[in-house]
Amino acid sequence: MPKGDKEKMYIKEEGMNDLWNVWYSELHEGQSGLTIKIEKVIESIESEFQRIDVIQTKDFGKMLVLYGSLMVCDNDNNSYNEMLAHIPLFSHPSPKKVLIIGGGDCGTLTEIMKHPEVESCTMCEIDKMVVDVSQKHFPYLTKGIEDPRANLIFDDGKKFIEESKEKFDIILLDLSDPIGPAADLFQKEFHQKVYDCLNDDGIMVAQSESPFYNKNTVKALYNNFNDIFPIAKMYTCFMPIYPSSYWSFAFCSKKYDPIKDFDSNRYKNLNLETQYYNNEIHKASFALPQFVKKIIK
Amino acid sequence: MPKGDKEKMYIKEEGMNDLWNVWYSELHEGQSGLTIKIEKVIESIESEFQRIDVIQTKDFGKMLVLYGSLMVCDNDNNSYNEMLAHIPLFSHPSPKKVLIIGGGDCGTLTEIMKHPEVESCTMCEIDKMVVDVSQKHFPYLTKGIEDPRANLIFDDGKKFIEESKEKFDIILLDLSDPIGPAADLFQKEFHQKVYDCLNDDGIMVAQSESPFYNKNTVKALYNNFNDIFPIAKMYTCFMPIYPSSYWSFAFCSKKYDPIKDFDSNRYKNLNLETQYYNNEIHKASFALPQFVKKIIK
Repeated sequence: MPKGDKEKMYIKEEGMNDLWNVWYSELHEGQSGLTIKIEKVIESIESEFQRIDVIQTKDFGKMLVLYGSLMVCDNDNNSYNEMLAHIPLFSHPSPKKVLIIGGGDCGTLTEIMKHPEVESCTMCEIDKMVVDVSQKHFPYLTKGIEDPRANLIFDDGKKFIEESKEKFDIILLDLSDPIGPAADLFQKEFHQKVYDCLNDDGIMVAQSESPFYNKNTVKALYNNFNDIFPIAKMYTCFMPIYPSSYWSFAFCSKKYDPIKDFDSNRYKNLNLETQYYNNEIHKASFALPQFVKKIIK
Repeated sequence: MPKGDKEKMYIKEEGMNDLWNVWYSELHEGQSGLTIKIEKVIESIESEFQRIDVIQTKDFGKMLVLYGSLMVCDNDNNSYNEMLAHIPLFSHPSPKKVLIIGGGDCGTLTEIMKHPEVESCTMCEIDKMVVDVSQKHFPYLTKGIEDPRANLIFDDGKKFIEESKEKFDIILLDLSDPIGPAADLFQKEFHQKVYDCLNDDGIMVAQSESPFYNKNTVKALYNNFNDIFPIAKMYTCFMPIYPSSYWSFAFCSKKYDPIKDFDSNRYKNLNLETQYYNNEIHKASFALPQFVKKIIK
């Protein structure tokens, strides 16, 4: 083949890659949201509970999509997992028994395991296939599974909470959106049962959606939390792949306050390796803009 | 016309509106970004300097687009303008003379005018058409123009700074992205000249792009700021229509520190009406996640 033709062919091949013009878009009520060019769909399977996709992109690296919602990716700075785990663990003086409901990508579990005070961390995830897919494609997120203190249960989180005879220091609701398999776990009845499974100085933290897009859900959730818990405070973080990139968590506590009871010495001594969380962010994340205060006042 | 047919016709008309399936997308290097369904393009004009679009949407209301970048919209909670204006104004004990370079939508000017200490606010915007379009479509943003202390100049900001014999207490660089008409105003030479136009206790604040998408630009900008100013600190806010929704500002100061010198009494007495800014956000916005600290360390 003459050199000229070969060169041309390469150009054509490169051009052909660019022709794979497929986009992942996650839209709020079909109106607006994040759109990301897909380099390759690595896996696309159906579990007993939901569709699971693993997608390769340039800006976000590998991404995990459950039931049409982006969950984690290589380049999200791990903000969601770190903020869900470390805020309650540094606010409780002795977090020995931890329970995660959901959390199938295991990112939160892995952060929990960084705390030597934790004696056991039970994770109740309904969909084993999410854990399997995460172990295959996001091994840095699932490292915590190897820890002997980790205890994985594949069951319905609602059933687990209803039947549990154990009490926990910390319970984390690491759920996908209030559609699909997690819908029941956003109801007040469930939160009341979580309260009952906590020790007398226990803390529950729940992801509580976007204060920008999900104003009604946020309002309803915080009404419930305030009815049930003596302390219920919102904190937020930047999470580039969640709707609006501005995400909220509910710190719901029977006794400890996330600012007053924050243990800065334990934070300093632990020398935590994080991409997002630090002691300043711990306190700052509870400062809310006026438009958010208005929603949950 | 029989009732049945009329009903059908309405359905068809509604359906026809839905057929106008046109999207505004603002992508980072063609790979990812915000996409928003357009209800109507209200205005689309070319000024001497750039293309200017005003677009109606459901989630964001009316939006102003300059040179292909979203600038402001009805539903952004005014976070960018409030954070640019109030952080330096409450950190300087006596902000009498203020200069805005850029800021054509006048949102920042309007926030500045809420401070009774300000004796004059000069705004030097290159493109008069941006101000005209904003007055027409975003009158709530341009209210500040009516204030007798406001002084609008339509000229090149670089030229204005180079030729200015005046000194200012506060200079705000309210610029669009470092492409298009504002490109020169992101260079070190320009920031040095801004420094020279400040009083001995003056403060400059510049918008400094997205710490998620624009890591190289952010790093270069803060190197420059640190070379020129004794105090250069980043603060951030949630801005739903800017790339990644996570936006940064550089607080560059000859004397005052934004936390230690924050005047909480003046804040309380002013009884400011804001959608985003408050005294807690003032302090919290300077707490940076680990991945951001790494960029500007």
